[in-house]
Amino acid sequence: MLKRLNHIAIAVPDLDQAAKFYRDILGATISEPQALPDHGVTTIFVDMGNTKLELLHPLGDTSPVTKFLEKNPQGGIHHYCLEVEDVSRTYAELAQHGIRILGAPKIGAHGKPVIFLHPKDCFGCLVELEDE
Amino acid sequence: MLKRLNHIAIAVPDLDQAAKFYRDILGATISEPQALPDHGVTTIFVDMGNTKLELLHPLGDTSPVTKFLEKNPQGGIHHYCLEVEDVSRTYAELAQHGIRILGAPKIGAHGKPVIFLHPKDCFGCLVELEDE
Repeated sequence: MLKRLNHIAIAVPDLDQAAKFYRDILGATISEPQALPDHGVTTIFVDMGNTKLELLHPLGDTSPVTKFLEKNPQGGIHHYCLEVEDVSRTYAELAQHGIRILGAPKIGAHGKPVIFLHPKDCFGCLVELEDE
Repeated sequence: MLKRLNHIAIAVPDLDQAAKFYRDILGATISEPQALPDHGVTTIFVDMGNTKLELLHPLGDTSPVTKFLEKNPQGGIHHYCLEVEDVSRTYAELAQHGIRILGAPKIGAHGKPVIFLHPKDCFGCLVELEDE
């Protein structure tokens, strides 16, 4: 059921500085900043050819990234996202295996159904699953 | 100069359990465990189609992963690896920009030159650069 790696999401305390690092120093192609108020983040996509990095910065008062940056002031990897054939089916299968899922499937930043798996069941990593 | 994402390396406290999670629960194709004594790890590769996850477990008394697991007993993302055209040239360019590099270029797990960038200069992430 597992398909491609969709992205690695990196929380950064300064989006401009992160953009400069990836674009000007490492020479990557990056997107313009994109505000996603429904997800509480402003994001910049770094094109890696085979996949992408998503640089995340908090947007609004209830951003899920704010607490992460309080714990990790320099930034850090927030989660990674794996594509699956069918998030709804995967949701049911994971539950059968005792893997905890954070909430019900919802529509993610790319307009597709996503779920987040509990880091305690994924070796300390916050794992997002998204419809391919 | 930046090319593809080569891999995400995930340190895990139990390699068998991690293999079962990715192979048996998520349905991924994974490799046999591979001992890399020069790098102080045993690794399993998870094929993601466009890139790979590398599950790392300490091997030997001086493994670089041991301290990470002491701090993160459940496991976690240890580093990610980006491919560049020429690690030696990148090494010089990064130094000019004040990006700290952890040691000189050495031969990595895939037999190619690699360098590691200081997490404090990469938004809290340990970043490996490898020749494409």
